[in-house]
Amino acid sequence: MLIVLDPQISPAQRSAIDETIRAAGCSIAEMPSRRGLLLLVDGDLDRLRQVPLKVFAGVSKVVGLSKPYALNSREHQAEPNVVKVGDARIGGGSLTVIGGPCAVEDRETLLAIANEVKASGANLLRGGAYKPRTSPYSFRGLGLEGLLMLRDVGLETGLPTVSEITDPRHIEACVSNVDMVQVGTRNMSNFDLLVEIGKSGHPVLLKRGRSATIADWLLAAEYILAQGNPNVVLCERGIRGFDPAMRNTLDLAAIPAIQARSHLPIIIDPSHATGVSAYVPALARAAIAAGADGVIIETHTDPTRARSDADQAMLPADFRDLCEDLRLMHRVANRSIDA
Amino acid sequence: MLIVLDPQISPAQRSAIDETIRAAGCSIAEMPSRRGLLLLVDGDLDRLRQVPLKVFAGVSKVVGLSKPYALNSREHQAEPNVVKVGDARIGGGSLTVIGGPCAVEDRETLLAIANEVKASGANLLRGGAYKPRTSPYSFRGLGLEGLLMLRDVGLETGLPTVSEITDPRHIEACVSNVDMVQVGTRNMSNFDLLVEIGKSGHPVLLKRGRSATIADWLLAAEYILAQGNPNVVLCERGIRGFDPAMRNTLDLAAIPAIQARSHLPIIIDPSHATGVSAYVPALARAAIAAGADGVIIETHTDPTRARSDADQAMLPADFRDLCEDLRLMHRVANRSIDA
Amino acid sequence: MLIVLDPQISPAQRSAIDETIRAAGCSIAEMPSRRGLLLLVDGDLDRLRQVPLKVFAGVSKVVGLSKPYALNSREHQAEPNVVKVGDARIGGGSLTVIGGPCAVEDRETLLAIANEVKASGANLLRGGAYKPRTSPYSFRGLGLEGLLMLRDVGLETGLPTVSEITDPRHIEACVSNVDMVQVGTRNMSNFDLLVEIGKSGHPVLLKRGRSATIADWLLAAEYILAQGNPNVVLCERGIRGFDPAMRNTLDLAAIPAIQARSHLPIIIDPSHATGVSAYVPALARAAIAAGADGVIIETHTDPTRARSDADQAMLPADFRDLCEDLRLMHRVANRSIDA
Amino acid sequence: MLIVLDPQISPAQRSAIDETIRAAGCSIAEMPSRRGLLLLVDGDLDRLRQVPLKVFAGVSKVVGLSKPYALNSREHQAEPNVVKVGDARIGGGSLTVIGGPCAVEDRETLLAIANEVKASGANLLRGGAYKPRTSPYSFRGLGLEGLLMLRDVGLETGLPTVSEITDPRHIEACVSNVDMVQVGTRNMSNFDLLVEIGKSGHPVLLKRGRSATIADWLLAAEYILAQGNPNVVLCERGIRGFDPAMRNTLDLAAIPAIQARSHLPIIIDPSHATGVSAYVPALARAAIAAGADGVIIETHTDPTRARSDADQAMLPADFRDLCEDLRLMHRVANRSIDA
Repeated sequence: MLIVLDPQISPAQRSAIDETIRAAGCSIAEMPSRRGLLLLVDGDLDRLRQVPLKVFAGVSKVVGLSKPYALNSREHQAEPNVVKVGDARIGGGSLTVIGGPCAVEDRETLLAIANEVKASGANLLRGGAYKPRTSPYSFRGLGLEGLLMLRDVGLETGLPTVSEITDPRHIEACVSNVDMVQVGTRNMSNFDLLVEIGKSGHPVLLKRGRSATIADWLLAAEYILAQGNPNVVLCERGIRGFDPAMRNTLDLAAIPAIQARSHLPIIIDPSHATGVSAYVPALARAAIAAGADGVIIETHTDPTRARSDADQAMLPADFRDLCEDLRLMHRVANRSIDA
Repeated sequence: MLIVLDPQISPAQRSAIDETIRAAGCSIAEMPSRRGLLLLVDGDLDRLRQVPLKVFAGVSKVVGLSKPYALNSREHQAEPNVVKVGDARIGGGSLTVIGGPCAVEDRETLLAIANEVKASGANLLRGGAYKPRTSPYSFRGLGLEGLLMLRDVGLETGLPTVSEITDPRHIEACVSNVDMVQVGTRNMSNFDLLVEIGKSGHPVLLKRGRSATIADWLLAAEYILAQGNPNVVLCERGIRGFDPAMRNTLDLAAIPAIQARSHLPIIIDPSHATGVSAYVPALARAAIAAGADGVIIETHTDPTRARSDADQAMLPADFRDLCEDLRLMHRVANRSIDA
Repeated sequence: MLIVLDPQISPAQRSAIDETIRAAGCSIAEMPSRRGLLLLVDGDLDRLRQVPLKVFAGVSKVVGLSKPYALNSREHQAEPNVVKVGDARIGGGSLTVIGGPCAVEDRETLLAIANEVKASGANLLRGGAYKPRTSPYSFRGLGLEGLLMLRDVGLETGLPTVSEITDPRHIEACVSNVDMVQVGTRNMSNFDLLVEIGKSGHPVLLKRGRSATIADWLLAAEYILAQGNPNVVLCERGIRGFDPAMRNTLDLAAIPAIQARSHLPIIIDPSHATGVSAYVPALARAAIAAGADGVIIETHTDPTRARSDADQAMLPADFRDLCEDLRLMHRVANRSIDA
Repeated sequence: MLIVLDPQISPAQRSAIDETIRAAGCSIAEMPSRRGLLLLVDGDLDRLRQVPLKVFAGVSKVVGLSKPYALNSREHQAEPNVVKVGDARIGGGSLTVIGGPCAVEDRETLLAIANEVKASGANLLRGGAYKPRTSPYSFRGLGLEGLLMLRDVGLETGLPTVSEITDPRHIEACVSNVDMVQVGTRNMSNFDLLVEIGKSGHPVLLKRGRSATIADWLLAAEYILAQGNPNVVLCERGIRGFDPAMRNTLDLAAIPAIQARSHLPIIIDPSHATGVSAYVPALARAAIAAGADGVIIETHTDPTRARSDADQAMLPADFRDLCEDLRLMHRVANRSIDA
């Protein structure tokens, strides 16, 4: 850490700074400069970062020279994390496709969709039971009843299951019934929920908050890892943008940006990102071409009867074609195919 | 509701649409147009809105002609809502100033700050006990111990208290110890939490989500009102912007925009909006000039010892001057002063 | 166009509206509704759209039922536009790669880069001579001298050339020396410049404005087409986002969104979008996978000597590998390869 | 400037860096640190900033310790700039109100509006003759004919005039006919236009670009100042936001942020910021309360006949009331009134 002092700093101000730094167990080296004296500070910087040095009188600038230590970082773990969910493995060079309806609506419909998902060669089944909806008057999901339907259909089709958790009080119900919990965009910064998931050790799909930076998102993941749970998969699902042409702005540059910083797998949700099912195939292919570890896609046997997000659900035949495209694309992206 | 049909619609497609509309108990009137037949639909539109008419084959456009009904709307209640918090009343033409530290740190510091807040003529005392922090390694508040300190200091100084709630499991502890709970920007869409607060009937300060539209925010408030709790005060605290010069972008146009739509009081948080204490007075004055019902401002007797958000805390003397300015500004904004 | 009248409209207000509509040569049909009388207006709506019907007393809502007519739309021209630039053809199923330095710096460097671009199999050579720079103290390009260097190096290597135009007074110099002019993000709404380019009939690469919606961008293209110049290629280069991790937010969903609306070709600029050369290959591959007609990429033989945007320039060997990847990816995206 | 070297830097890499720094006439001092050797560089840093030191092999980080020198900065000129426009003076503690129609439509209407503006006590008359419009099919203004009407009406009413310039080829016509030229949001980064205005020495109202940061905007102003023209007034008019409730997001925090950095006056345009005339009074009052030097507001005697931006134009009677409010607010903001 580098501190640039104000040239007019008083001896008392200087003493206050020095004492604070030394109280945090850090060392100080001085270096004169035209803009004022520089202090190069070393030692337990994580502790010193808790102190608001910027607001001390006599300090004109504080510059961090090293990144805060993070369990999710490449510096901490060089090889990619692989997260095991039932029989599936996410990350480490494999392709993961998660398919299913936005919400679990009834057992029959869910089973019909799950059979299509299975037949398409996808790896996991999604289905919401606790649905966070913008309006309190929209369908909010079947709750525990929906979770149990999802569990049964998952067992019947042999597909591991993913479902959203929105409340720390549901942790037992979710962990005991689904193979992977999902934290949605609205709850990325619900830290109490993240801590509970961390304690559970259960696999988790952590969606990016609608206005979260890459750094915010990795720090949210860190809440889970810091509790001893390494089973975190990141999911980019579009960030808030200004264009009414699409529901969100899909940030595919997050793929290389995350991979440069973190060992966590990253998958893409083109369904929520655009809200337009016709745009989903192009963006799913792009995600795999850019190196994503997988995609999560909404599919429904009858979108006209879907109780949420009908606009973005693909029909089963289109979903099947897309899965085939993605397998080819994945081989190209991994250079296991020749021109 | 108006539905524009595709000119190439088949009789079977048309039947499916008509049946769906009639099944929801709505009536249909037809009107021919060059762009295809128009259906004017009337009746229980709230029910029909649950159906994804847009994805029906043969429909080219669906146009809403009326707004969904909302408890927070001016249409529902013309006169402004007034929320009683202890002895304070927020809304309805009065000026509310909430002051205090970002976080409760220790009893002595809190009491010193509270005495300054009281002496400045402010109305409520703020202080965080459960702190949502971007990094899991930052200070996250004293929890219940902090709540109890806040309660005691509130009683000692005669100031009603406000503190953040982040977890539905804390509802009892919060409701029984503080006069008003605050939902922070990260939890505006934590709907399970909102429902609990709704059930409690306790006064709540609902901050705007960092990427929430005006409509999203009012629907979040609606979650609370729909549970029978009318004691909601909105708080604009800056939305996500692109300029690194400030922590957030303060959207003061939310004041007239909310007032045109809703009867709920609205206050402004210039401290979090900018993250720069030097900008706080100008924006607090602007908020009152624009017609806000109040402001919430961070103040600390010694920002160099603050354990969070030190950059944005005002010193007590500056806070006192600002409170005076705001009272004058409020009289001008309410035309109770002459030039 | 549909006009919802206020139930309390007076006869005089109603007359004023009717006269205005009829004066624009449009017809009116009435339809009663619970929310007030509806007027269905047909005829020369482009003319009527110039009138601010929304502000007429007695009007509560105006709803457009059809899109404004546009030369760039799929409705106007179903087949994709193909733009010929020298020997190259952009759009219509071919893959276009444009490579070269951010700025023309000197003849020798430019020739060395151009030879690499040619050897990599790319199709066009880029190089800025008139550089819009955020700071007036940055290098602003060699101007006409740079254009002439680019022309000579283009002729020597057989590569058609692209260079930015920033001023309508440069139209002659640009059109007579480069094969395609580029309008940068800062000038997308410089309509006087667009009109001049429209009149020239010259091929143009129209970058998306940093805060332009899809609709804004297509209307900017329309300025050029409306002058009789159909030779417009769109270029997505990242829009303004909130994350400091990247220079801009690359909006790859613009590819299917543009293709759904317009017959104009679209290419992607991952270099400016991210500002990080290490992220360029992943995003270039993603662009082609999503169906883009090409990419424009910065490459430099010695980034340490580059006078602008050094961070985002790829080294020639990396550029060559990427070009190979893109050709394979293009065959996969066009299904001209089997698994 | 501080350069953090990679601990694995080779002697050849180190030499390349040192030579480049010395070639720019700068000095180097070394300082060892745990993260690698630090180089403290001093001297002609403006020159060295042209070199992309970050991309040199062996450099892990470059940190600027001082701001680039700028003519618009408080460091360059401590006292506020005052810009003289005809008889009006903008900045330095006075209140400036600019009123008038969006576009000059005909002489009679303009004169009627101008008389109202004058009677309201406003200081300058606005009116667009060259109108940049998103669609090429919208009314684009009367051009030179409109400028001449504005000049005549300005002379007749004694109001100095402001009108937009969009093309460097119009500089003579604009400078000789209007008292102040305006650069609109779409042309803030039209640097060729800014340079011409800089050379003219004419007063200019420089609107903020829709996606410009505070730093981008000040650098655009710097283009004008760098040509020897100090007569620059900044105008915040809303930045691109995500909420469809308003046309733009008005960033009133720009007022203290600009005043902390620059000596240039700043005024606010609430009409374009919101696009809703009913919100204009609240935000105009807020702007003056926050310390702005003035406002620019659209007013029209008959918005139903306005040929652009009718939604945001105030009626003359409302404009007059607002002007009175603003004068009172200005006295309060300047503490020339007592409670």
